[in-house]
Amino acid sequence: MKKNKEHLARETSRIEAFSDGVFAIAMTLLVLDLKVPHSLNGNIPLLQALASEWPIFAAYLTSFATIGIMWMSHHYLFTVIHRSDHWLFLINLFLLLLITFVPFPTSMVAEYIGKSAENAASALYSGTFFIIALAFQFLWRHASKNRRLIGESVDESIVRGITSSYRFGPPLYLAAFILSFINVIAAMAVTFGLAIFFAIPPKKPAKSPLLPSR
Amino acid sequence: MKKNKEHLARETSRIEAFSDGVFAIAMTLLVLDLKVPHSLNGNIPLLQALASEWPIFAAYLTSFATIGIMWMSHHYLFTVIHRSDHWLFLINLFLLLLITFVPFPTSMVAEYIGKSAENAASALYSGTFFIIALAFQFLWRHASKNRRLIGESVDESIVRGITSSYRFGPPLYLAAFILSFINVIAAMAVTFGLAIFFAIPPKKPAKSPLLPSR
Amino acid sequence: MKKNKEHLARETSRIEAFSDGVFAIAMTLLVLDLKVPHSLNGNIPLLQALASEWPIFAAYLTSFATIGIMWMSHHYLFTVIHRSDHWLFLINLFLLLLITFVPFPTSMVAEYIGKSAENAASALYSGTFFIIALAFQFLWRHASKNRRLIGESVDESIVRGITSSYRFGPPLYLAAFILSFINVIAAMAVTFGLAIFFAIPPKKPAKSPLLPSR
Amino acid sequence: MKKNKEHLARETSRIEAFSDGVFAIAMTLLVLDLKVPHSLNGNIPLLQALASEWPIFAAYLTSFATIGIMWMSHHYLFTVIHRSDHWLFLINLFLLLLITFVPFPTSMVAEYIGKSAENAASALYSGTFFIIALAFQFLWRHASKNRRLIGESVDESIVRGITSSYRFGPPLYLAAFILSFINVIAAMAVTFGLAIFFAIPPKKPAKSPLLPSR
Repeated sequence: MKKNKEHLARETSRIEAFSDGVFAIAMTLLVLDLKVPHSLNGNIPLLQALASEWPIFAAYLTSFATIGIMWMSHHYLFTVIHRSDHWLFLINLFLLLLITFVPFPTSMVAEYIGKSAENAASALYSGTFFIIALAFQFLWRHASKNRRLIGESVDESIVRGITSSYRFGPPLYLAAFILSFINVIAAMAVTFGLAIFFAIPPKKPAKSPLLPSR
Repeated sequence: MKKNKEHLARETSRIEAFSDGVFAIAMTLLVLDLKVPHSLNGNIPLLQALASEWPIFAAYLTSFATIGIMWMSHHYLFTVIHRSDHWLFLINLFLLLLITFVPFPTSMVAEYIGKSAENAASALYSGTFFIIALAFQFLWRHASKNRRLIGESVDESIVRGITSSYRFGPPLYLAAFILSFINVIAAMAVTFGLAIFFAIPPKKPAKSPLLPSR
Repeated sequence: MKKNKEHLARETSRIEAFSDGVFAIAMTLLVLDLKVPHSLNGNIPLLQALASEWPIFAAYLTSFATIGIMWMSHHYLFTVIHRSDHWLFLINLFLLLLITFVPFPTSMVAEYIGKSAENAASALYSGTFFIIALAFQFLWRHASKNRRLIGESVDESIVRGITSSYRFGPPLYLAAFILSFINVIAAMAVTFGLAIFFAIPPKKPAKSPLLPSR
Repeated sequence: MKKNKEHLARETSRIEAFSDGVFAIAMTLLVLDLKVPHSLNGNIPLLQALASEWPIFAAYLTSFATIGIMWMSHHYLFTVIHRSDHWLFLINLFLLLLITFVPFPTSMVAEYIGKSAENAASALYSGTFFIIALAFQFLWRHASKNRRLIGESVDESIVRGITSSYRFGPPLYLAAFILSFINVIAAMAVTFGLAIFFAIPPKKPAKSPLLPSR
């Protein structure tokens, strides 16, 4: 039994390590978008040039915060998911595809905010996060419907708590997506606000001392 | 014996962690190929510009899916390979060399698809995956022929099952390579189709509850 | 109890692995700043061109050393922090945001040192490290004030020792920040000197054989 | 004692994971050097353009092989080094600085081979590997002279075997460095040959079944 336990504990460890790598690299690559303004004379012109780049910094911060919160969410899920199967691998791979894609719409929105093509750029940006929210849904649905993927010691109320808290993601990101066609600054603000919203500690299902966190 | 077991368990852990890192970075670097279209006025022109970049997105998706499936394959192999030797390290390093190389032919195919040099670009692309399929063969041949590299508890039928499922890779990627000289879109479709094909759950040798997954 | 122990031991492992990834990538991306001088004829002109790039190399070395020492510091902290909570995750994420940002001010300072906008560039550079030092303070304050996050076997004197050694970071980086407005070379030298200073072995709290290093 | 053992086993695990990350990223970033030839019409011109880029591919292959072998060497060292101290961290950080630097001289040599500045580029390239070989010496000297850093079960003959096999690195890379001033192709060939040479299985000190590999 002890031996068995250990096997369970290790079964998702490589999927987690690999996902950590992808999340970490996607987050770090975002910095490549920040452009050093060239050939400026004097401190004030340099600071002004940086200030005029604010959409780039805003997009950087929003994407970093969003991927960061999603990494935390991924981490929490895998404190209750103790086993993997083939589909979990595939859904997780699809999720990671979307995560690695994030730097591209981030560049788009940084380039076009305040310009005439900003709606398309912003829609691609918040649309990406909407699909990521759906991918998280798929991942959790698959895991929670296959009870043997969930740790034996995980209480059913915890499973229900996660399912319940995951309801909000897709509609909220869908709202940001729709807002992109109306007001881009508002859509960006909502996207950033969602990262803050999801950063608020949950009713601590995954952190309960009663829950073995592997 | 318990102590011995533990040593076995840990022996391939660093080779796996290192390989995970390389796979994750190669997959994430693919995004650097996606180019933000510059200086477009209006949402429709921007969407049209993105639409005209479809070969870049197709190449991105195909490469991501292929490396992703190969990572899963690598992961499954190391659920039965419990020990490493010098040659396993070297063959694995050769495999990783090819994995890190993938972003280059991906850029090539994204740039030249639909142009007069597309056959050379596509041949380099599918040729790279053909050689990767061969490298996987070498890796598994070496491991399965040195029975002590395989976990003691791994049943012979599982070893044979993997050997059998690995037969398909090289000839199928060779077919995509040959197709590159005839019809590039077909060759790309086959390459993408192969990723989907290999994503279909195997007759679950590596996931059997009877198989200690380390 | 043994089981409990194990859980504790593993609880921060994924936060550490993820942070390791971000630190490693941020440090490695710094090399992308080093520019190969193009189209030079002869060995001497090439060496001269490299020599004239010294601010780029100095910034590379300073940033690498600083992030490296900060990684060591992070590692030491997590030899005494054995449990995580939601806030620890968030503060750590904020710290990682700043670490991924470092390549940008590094490029800035490499570009503008010796030019008329050098003060702004240098202030951004040392200002970033000042905020990182504050983030480390927050991280440690939060952990040390929530005694249950600290390993049970960790002696109170070790906790006090770390708190005491962490006092120096913010004011010293603040000094480098202020110096940026007066003398940029001096500010850079102080920043590099601080990396050396923090590299000096501490009064070994975290390495004591009495301290379980997880 | 069991508990103690476990602590020993884990003590270098984060230093290894972090080093793995840096090695993996440095190796993967090398691909960014490979340039897709632009705007070529026809398959033959594209293949000719790729063929004319051979120095870039040769440099890519040599650097990948060299960093790969050095990663294996690093891995072997840490199968006998079971404990870390402050200096080991610092020497390892210095080693990683050099590893992250490798893509830069690789670009240099890829750009200047066959041109009039090739000696300077090649000297920087092999000079970097010479200093890395010295850093490995420092790392091992420090570990082997502090017997408590070495695993208790590691036989003295294994320690001597590593010390003996490490004698060759610095003089051989020094030879490649000197050769850079005489014949660059020969210097490159020697550097590549050294990777092959060090890839030959050692008299298996680190793989002996008698040696606990942690």
